[in-house]
Amino acid sequence: MSLNEEAMGIAEVLAMMSDDYRTAVYPIEGGGRFIDCGISVRGGLRTGVELARCCLASLADVELIPGEVAGHPVSMVHVVTDHPVRACLASQYAGWSIQVGKFFAMGSGPMRAAAGTEAIFETIGHREEPSFVVGILETSKPPTAAVFEKIAEGCRVKPSAVTLLAAPTASLAGGVQIVARSVETALHKLAELKFDLSRIISAHGWAPLPPVASSDLAAIGRTNDAILYGARVVLMVSGDDASLEAIGPKVPSMASRDHGEPFAQIFARYHHDFYAVDPHLFSPAQVSFQNVETGRSWTFGWLEPGVLERSFFL
Amino acid sequence: MSLNEEAMGIAEVLAMMSDDYRTAVYPIEGGGRFIDCGISVRGGLRTGVELARCCLASLADVELIPGEVAGHPVSMVHVVTDHPVRACLASQYAGWSIQVGKFFAMGSGPMRAAAGTEAIFETIGHREEPSFVVGILETSKPPTAAVFEKIAEGCRVKPSAVTLLAAPTASLAGGVQIVARSVETALHKLAELKFDLSRIISAHGWAPLPPVASSDLAAIGRTNDAILYGARVVLMVSGDDASLEAIGPKVPSMASRDHGEPFAQIFARYHHDFYAVDPHLFSPAQVSFQNVETGRSWTFGWLEPGVLERSFFL
Amino acid sequence: MSLNEEAMGIAEVLAMMSDDYRTAVYPIEGGGRFIDCGISVRGGLRTGVELARCCLASLADVELIPGEVAGHPVSMVHVVTDHPVRACLASQYAGWSIQVGKFFAMGSGPMRAAAGTEAIFETIGHREEPSFVVGILETSKPPTAAVFEKIAEGCRVKPSAVTLLAAPTASLAGGVQIVARSVETALHKLAELKFDLSRIISAHGWAPLPPVASSDLAAIGRTNDAILYGARVVLMVSGDDASLEAIGPKVPSMASRDHGEPFAQIFARYHHDFYAVDPHLFSPAQVSFQNVETGRSWTFGWLEPGVLERSFFL
Repeated sequence: MSLNEEAMGIAEVLAMMSDDYRTAVYPIEGGGRFIDCGISVRGGLRTGVELARCCLASLADVELIPGEVAGHPVSMVHVVTDHPVRACLASQYAGWSIQVGKFFAMGSGPMRAAAGTEAIFETIGHREEPSFVVGILETSKPPTAAVFEKIAEGCRVKPSAVTLLAAPTASLAGGVQIVARSVETALHKLAELKFDLSRIISAHGWAPLPPVASSDLAAIGRTNDAILYGARVVLMVSGDDASLEAIGPKVPSMASRDHGEPFAQIFARYHHDFYAVDPHLFSPAQVSFQNVETGRSWTFGWLEPGVLERSFFL
Repeated sequence: MSLNEEAMGIAEVLAMMSDDYRTAVYPIEGGGRFIDCGISVRGGLRTGVELARCCLASLADVELIPGEVAGHPVSMVHVVTDHPVRACLASQYAGWSIQVGKFFAMGSGPMRAAAGTEAIFETIGHREEPSFVVGILETSKPPTAAVFEKIAEGCRVKPSAVTLLAAPTASLAGGVQIVARSVETALHKLAELKFDLSRIISAHGWAPLPPVASSDLAAIGRTNDAILYGARVVLMVSGDDASLEAIGPKVPSMASRDHGEPFAQIFARYHHDFYAVDPHLFSPAQVSFQNVETGRSWTFGWLEPGVLERSFFL
Repeated sequence: MSLNEEAMGIAEVLAMMSDDYRTAVYPIEGGGRFIDCGISVRGGLRTGVELARCCLASLADVELIPGEVAGHPVSMVHVVTDHPVRACLASQYAGWSIQVGKFFAMGSGPMRAAAGTEAIFETIGHREEPSFVVGILETSKPPTAAVFEKIAEGCRVKPSAVTLLAAPTASLAGGVQIVARSVETALHKLAELKFDLSRIISAHGWAPLPPVASSDLAAIGRTNDAILYGARVVLMVSGDDASLEAIGPKVPSMASRDHGEPFAQIFARYHHDFYAVDPHLFSPAQVSFQNVETGRSWTFGWLEPGVLERSFFL
């Protein structure tokens, strides 16, 4: 099955069981379907788990388990995948910047593989030509008909073949689907560092779910902190050891000059200009490489519970 | 689907896969069906998980994970729900006192929403008029035909439309289904404190599963201790902060004058009269509120591993 | 359903969803089907979970959760079963030594209950006469047609009725399915100690997943260490307390004279002769007995994180 077909199965469940998942489904004038997971509806934790699975094109297990941050009980989101590049980079990565009039959102999900225009697809392949597409937006504003048209055009399908799901950063489902990006951020950092991604065989990652923040801006801070200071990722890889020892220290967030403060403060320091923040900051707190061919392992980076406490609870 | 329909799906699995779940199914003379989950049969851990899910009307995920109490490995029961009031109070709460002749048991499950006579339904709504009902009893004695008649009458259905499931307190399945009440006890305490329950959006709770005790009386002690001294609950809520700060310290079990001893001792001190025990004792060890609107969180109460050790292992 | 029918359901999924599970399916000349889970294909973590479930004849839940060894994030494999003897001893135990020409592998899975010739079946029963059989091999070499013939003969079925699955010790799926043997090793040790196995009602066990080693020999070391020094098992049992107190100290691996070193070193000391190693070594690091009739519990043995660190990471 294509990534978009895999994701559609989950999107259908989120649409049909709208009472269980507290979603709302809107047909779009001009074609297409919008599944609201947290804008005009409450959504929920399990909604977020399904939204994350949809975003990963059903190629990863996503589950909530008990966790703790600074003495407070919190949920932890963990992700297991045997298709890390396909699930996380061809689908889950929020690499499609969608601007249509006043509407702006980062787009993720398998529609990206149908569009296939991002540079990362040159490296990873996994482009596809499905007859319908599924996309996830991190936004507080419902996508307009013009957004559906633009995405349809980019994916070379009709607007009626487009299903979009959305949740705000500051929502239960939005939080879960972002914090389910522990493995993805490790992989994206490795892509930035020109690591041969075909060496990454399987992965297991986890990160604490922050409390929903009072605004999307504040939520951007907390969800980033959950990854930067709270995520642990294990990557099972092939190939030589020397390249892992060389690249390893550059992978976790501690490799960045901006590491050490809650993201909200870093972001404010750069006047909320994402592109001014050191792009090397965006990766898990800790990344472990297990070379399945040589049997050697290395763990780089460390958790920063104190920063998590400041971000989540103070 | 109604709560009773949701629960029936799980009851059917427990009845049909009686070899896997070590259950036994008895047609009742006069109508109705009894699914024994631990009285004349062994039942089991997974039986308990399904019994708990049935009791929660399938509106919560329930899972066992590894845990530890005082150096001993134990199972932990965790519960995630996006419908806390409906799942835990309209269905799971053991609020129906069923006395028929010599038979006595506390009844829980969605049949309560069909009866709808408990005071709590005035506050929470979620009454329903299903064509069949599902109830769970905590008892060591199989319910008689007269019990089915009484429940049928209360729910305004025929006895043949009643499915009852039961497990003793001192059984594997009974233990799991009781310890799956971490979130429920927090909600019930909040109901007692007149908190506006419509503010509770989602919840995640967990508690250690005590070893099965030698008698139902001893098991009442341990399963209560699992909640009172071992449960942690996260409540995602809406509304103002001041009310949370005011009510918070009253929610966990430490707010009770009876807090601090194993429940068996407290119960004995009150000559095994439940109604003499401070009703404010019955809540989780620790409750965290996350206000999804203001982004602020508070955690009240603490774990008491020493009391758990005395209760479970000494 | 028979054990072989239960297992076949999972084997079919592993065969049909070969893209998701990174398996390969080979029809065997002369009859039979081979599902490769890690020899000529990568397999994966989720493949290992399904392989373990298949090996347990679907009578146990197997899941990966986050874990930690010596500061390194690792996956943890946990197993819950209400049919411990049937799932672990009649099916999962690797008790069938299969030697055909140069091919050698330990065979596990429900085909053993169809053959029924191992001494352990005298004690546990659960023999069956299915019309098809499923077996799991721990090997780096695909089984030959002669292997299928031998197994068919042993199980009194045609070779075309034989499905074999295999993964090397040094593979992702192989590692998961071995480390899912925490409960099994406790039960097998108890069988060796002549404990009445019918007293074991339910079980929950967990152990850390070691990094895949560079060779099957090295992987034998690590996967054994995961159990010997990293596994915790809770057994719910019936019967008297005195027998548990008497046998308990003999059950965990610390009861063996060989306990305390990484298994690779012990194995080398005995010139890689399995039969020279103290058979009492092969059991979990820690075993807890919960007597469901008397309510008493005992925990024997302890974790050895230092040995795990040497085995997995140094």
